[in-house]
This record gives sequence, structure tokens and C-alpha cells, in this order.
Amino acid sequence: MAGLGKHLIAEVWGQNDQLLNDPDYLRESLLIAAHRGNFSVLGVNVHTFSPHGVTGVVVLAESHISIHTWPEFHYAALDIFACSGNPWAAFKALKERLHVERFEVQELDRGLLEPG
Amino acid sequence: MAGLGKHLIAEVWGQNDQLLNDPDYLRESLLIAAHRGNFSVLGVNVHTFSPHGVTGVVVLAESHISIHTWPEFHYAALDIFACSGNPWAAFKALKERLHVERFEVQELDRGLLEPG
Repeated sequence: MAGLGKHLIAEVWGQNDQLLNDPDYLRESLLIAAHRGNFSVLGVNVHTFSPHGVTGVVVLAESHISIHTWPEFHYAALDIFACSGNPWAAFKALKERLHVERFEVQELDRGLLEPG
Repeated sequence: MAGLGKHLIAEVWGQNDQLLNDPDYLRESLLIAAHRGNFSVLGVNVHTFSPHGVTGVVVLAESHISIHTWPEFHYAALDIFACSGNPWAAFKALKERLHVERFEVQELDRGLLEPG
């Protein structure tokens, strides 16, 4: 049974920690991912933490994309939640932009409607 | 093994569709939830859709809280992703504010570090 939205929950690891700590690069990456997923962007928030780490959220007409990075662990948490469009294309764009070497993705069906 | 963050993925259902379609009420609810979770708010985005439905995202120093509502299905998707603080207290606040009657929550450990 299909749900109201697909939610990709991705753990990604790479060795390019500089990218994971670059708010401008990550903002651009999120917008590229939204475009690839055929999503409509309603708002973007990107914040940089001290001494390292970036959080970025794109609010979409289709739900949201978020990234939280821990460059010190070569790690980022990605979430792509979309009620239409192509979340896997958005994930692929982020995977390329972040030079991901290893990843784990769970795909959840959100908003499963009850029978009847 | 603990991860870098806890992610609560919650499906909630209630009968008060008016609340699920009220952007001001939902914005206030998200901020109350952030306060209860002992989180620091960096930004808030709330959007209303036609003919119904609201999306709200709070960007936190600790990661994010999001809500996407489908009032026509008496349903909302909640995500609370937090690298510190008390995500369950934030969930409880939202559950009360939204007059939730039924819910399912998954708790994921995000950013599990590899052994060694």
C-alpha cells in the first residue's frame, strides 16, 4: 500500500570534510538536489556551527530535504521527504556533490492510509 | 552503540482537522515543542497549501523538527531529529497540542560511528 509520501533516510560518509563544512557549497547542493528531484523550493535555511558542522533545510512544496553534517566524523545525515517528484534523483545529486564513498538508505512510506 | 543523534519518526492521527490546517497554531506548537525539548531555535518556516495542508520546519542548533499535515486524512508526519536535548519531551508537547488520538513512533539512531 502506498503512503502519502516517501521518506529517504540516508547516512552518508565521505572523506572530503571540507565540503561537509562549507555552507555555501551545501546550500547550492541542496538546491541542485531539489531541482533534480523536480521539487518546488519554498525556503532554505543553512547554519554553520563552531568549530565545525553545518545544518541545512530546504522546505519544499513536496515536504523537505535536510542535511546535518559532522565533518569530524566524515559523516552527514540526509533526509528527503517528498509527497511527489523523485526523491531518489535528489539523493543521487547529493551523493555526487558530497563525494560520498559509503552510504545506507532506508526508504519509508509515510502516511499509510488505513484500509477502508 | 549510541549515534550522533536521535531521530523520532512519528505518524500521528487525530480528529481535529482545524488544528492541522492552522499555520499560526502549528508554528506556536513547533516552538513550544522546541522549548520542551530544550532545543535552541535557529529558524522557522511555515507554509500553507491550497486547498489544505501545512508544512512547518524548525531548524535547531540540535538539528530539526518538521511537520507536514494532511488534514483531509486527519494525519500529520512529525520528525524530531536532535543530537542533544529531549526529543521525546518535544514529541509529547506536539502530541498534546495536536490532540493526537493514535500514533506510531520509530526511534532511529542517526550517525552510528563505526567500531574503532
